[in-house]
Amino acid sequence: MFWSLIMFPQDIIMKKRDGNVLSKEEIEYFVKGVVDGHFQDYQSAALLMAIFLKGMNAQETSYLTQAMMNSGEVLSFPAIPKAKVDKHSTGGVGDKVSLILAPLAACCGLCVPMISGRGLGHTGGTLDKLESMKGFRVDLSPKEFEKQLEHLGVAMIGQTSNIAPADKKLYALRDVTGTVESIPLICASIMSKKLAEGIDSLVLDVKYGKGAFMKSFENAKILAQNMVAIGKNMNRPTVALLTDMNQPLGKMVGNALEMIESFECLKGRGPKDLVDLTIELTAQMVVLGHVEKDIHKAKKLVQEKLASGIALEKMKEMIACQGGDPRVADDYSLLPQAKFQESFQARQKGWVYEIEALKVGVAGMILGAGRESIKDKINPAVGFTNLAKVGDEVKPGDLLCTIHYDDQHKKQEAVHLLEKAFVIRETKPPLPNLIQEVVQ
Amino acid sequence: MFWSLIMFPQDIIMKKRDGNVLSKEEIEYFVKGVVDGHFQDYQSAALLMAIFLKGMNAQETSYLTQAMMNSGEVLSFPAIPKAKVDKHSTGGVGDKVSLILAPLAACCGLCVPMISGRGLGHTGGTLDKLESMKGFRVDLSPKEFEKQLEHLGVAMIGQTSNIAPADKKLYALRDVTGTVESIPLICASIMSKKLAEGIDSLVLDVKYGKGAFMKSFENAKILAQNMVAIGKNMNRPTVALLTDMNQPLGKMVGNALEMIESFECLKGRGPKDLVDLTIELTAQMVVLGHVEKDIHKAKKLVQEKLASGIALEKMKEMIACQGGDPRVADDYSLLPQAKFQESFQARQKGWVYEIEALKVGVAGMILGAGRESIKDKINPAVGFTNLAKVGDEVKPGDLLCTIHYDDQHKKQEAVHLLEKAFVIRETKPPLPNLIQEVVQ
Repeated sequence: MFWSLIMFPQDIIMKKRDGNVLSKEEIEYFVKGVVDGHFQDYQSAALLMAIFLKGMNAQETSYLTQAMMNSGEVLSFPAIPKAKVDKHSTGGVGDKVSLILAPLAACCGLCVPMISGRGLGHTGGTLDKLESMKGFRVDLSPKEFEKQLEHLGVAMIGQTSNIAPADKKLYALRDVTGTVESIPLICASIMSKKLAEGIDSLVLDVKYGKGAFMKSFENAKILAQNMVAIGKNMNRPTVALLTDMNQPLGKMVGNALEMIESFECLKGRGPKDLVDLTIELTAQMVVLGHVEKDIHKAKKLVQEKLASGIALEKMKEMIACQGGDPRVADDYSLLPQAKFQESFQARQKGWVYEIEALKVGVAGMILGAGRESIKDKINPAVGFTNLAKVGDEVKPGDLLCTIHYDDQHKKQEAVHLLEKAFVIRETKPPLPNLIQEVVQ
Repeated sequence: MFWSLIMFPQDIIMKKRDGNVLSKEEIEYFVKGVVDGHFQDYQSAALLMAIFLKGMNAQETSYLTQAMMNSGEVLSFPAIPKAKVDKHSTGGVGDKVSLILAPLAACCGLCVPMISGRGLGHTGGTLDKLESMKGFRVDLSPKEFEKQLEHLGVAMIGQTSNIAPADKKLYALRDVTGTVESIPLICASIMSKKLAEGIDSLVLDVKYGKGAFMKSFENAKILAQNMVAIGKNMNRPTVALLTDMNQPLGKMVGNALEMIESFECLKGRGPKDLVDLTIELTAQMVVLGHVEKDIHKAKKLVQEKLASGIALEKMKEMIACQGGDPRVADDYSLLPQAKFQESFQARQKGWVYEIEALKVGVAGMILGAGRESIKDKINPAVGFTNLAKVGDEVKPGDLLCTIHYDDQHKKQEAVHLLEKAFVIRETKPPLPNLIQEVVQ
């Protein structure tokens, strides 16, 4: 009968509910329906829960990614002869790698069309950090974006409503229906947006640990493997680094403060963990972009470019191109500054055994550095500097961090959390291995 | 922190998603939210899918039933001294038991406040059958309903919007989100509506087989056991019969035609299977209502009442009370009649080995006796009479059924289905056991 040819949302829902594999057509019908409304929100929610509980195989996840990518504009830059490569991080406290890596990779001969998100949760996102520079525009038009990429090799903008609109809708729905932490859904969400940027290849920084979205190394690895497989399936070579996010990355947390640490890094004065990770990720991009054949040569190139100072110049050019004042890189007083600073000190003797990144992140959010809800306004000035690192030896009165704040009451709340975040013991801790594994 | 005291829909969804048991408060919060809108449809859909896949224990199902029942008006008839007992069937092809049982149970001294639904799917519901009688009102006001129950001991009406509104919303949502076939959700839906009728006890006819909602005996038994447990939990003694629905019940299918078969039954001329099942179900009501102590005495009472003809008189009184013409019971020409009749005959010699109830039901729907969508209008006149029964010996040309139809084209489609529905073989089939088990 002819009606067997018509697809109904509930048939697709029931198929996944019963643990079956969805076809390309069914997945495309779903994603199309999410955007044009013939898949109602409640039907999408039911399917998302079925996917959460029954999973999706690699092929299904690739189809979902592709359909979500194709739900909106897919950029491409055929006029730019360079390899287009980007990096994406699953996010962590103090993670300002993008701000250093993007100009650095451009200096290595790559084109970096970076589209970032705002932060929701304990820390600001890359866009929030960039916007702590007065005048900096993250809303370049597609034409401006392309022109700057041609001219500079790097541009950093926000997601437009034309990029993967299906993801926007589904992400909002997942957030309120308890279906966020699903590997195939996370993969498709990240990869659909990134691959819509028109890149040839991609490096992923998948974080695990107490300050990361993925708490366990094992789950982070599964996520990494899935995204690498999708990249391969979609003919976009992808490499993922599995990196530790138990303590904050670097020594500064906060939006303007992380801009400062990025500038320091570009001047060759960055903290070791941040510099190491940035070099490793940029080098992977260099290899994927066929600028160098092996990772050792790539690392050498990246280190040279960083040491030469031209990445800092590239950063300044980008700031100028996008409406900011490049002098900010040399005069940090041009950035917003908090009214007060206070030392947070060790009370006992021993070693910094653990710094719970999530607690530091939430303390920052309380000060105003992050958003509790999407409508909240960020305070770009507040945060922490001089953060101690795991393995530091301390005695009572030693600095664990400096708190930058505007509000006495919020500072007090943040201090309560910091007291729990810093664990000092009388034994020396094992030193964390920042880069645990490369998945390719 | 104080925010841990606030309940959020997504927390409840995640709790069930992860396979945990929901508390009474959480279930009440959900059902309340469904009605007042602070649980959005997409959140309800996600939770329904999580319940579908992770289940609910007996206690959770009882809480859900109770909350759904309490989401609207709960009737009670303290002024009526009789035991208030009702019957509910999970539905099947040719099931017109309610039409006979309701007046019969009233004649045995019970009060039967029967609230029925319309049919959706292959057959009309009890309301559709009643409405094939011109003028018959199923929309009595609560006052009229109570008055008639006091006066006659029986009234048959449709569900008002005040009865279990949470069920109405959830049922509509389940229908379009692939979450219908969930034992706890089915149980809560049926029991919340029935227990809101103000009954003291309940008899359930849970059907299994090719023409039933539950295809397997095992699943039907689980459903029956769950509903009996809910009844017990809510202090409403409940008994369930597990009955065969592989072939249609009785010898007539269609709305006006099933009214005719019901009248025939009340006159002592009903087909054996229909009469046996009706007597058994009514007798269970008689025992639950404490009119008789044991099932044998109860059956004897019911048989006597049926044979005496007073149940037919009770039926006529009810028709008159509810705006219909009681003469219809004696003059079937007052009922809508189809334009054409055609014999559907056996083509080979042997025994009727199987009659697939679902196919007969769908054939009836094609003629116009059922609804494909809730908006479809039913044709009360069409259907089948003289249906053969499994075990009948036939030779070519013998009647398998008479088709009552208005539209030549639809009749042709129905015949195609009937050809598949009737299976004739050269060996004698095992005779089906109509009443398989009693769960109490």
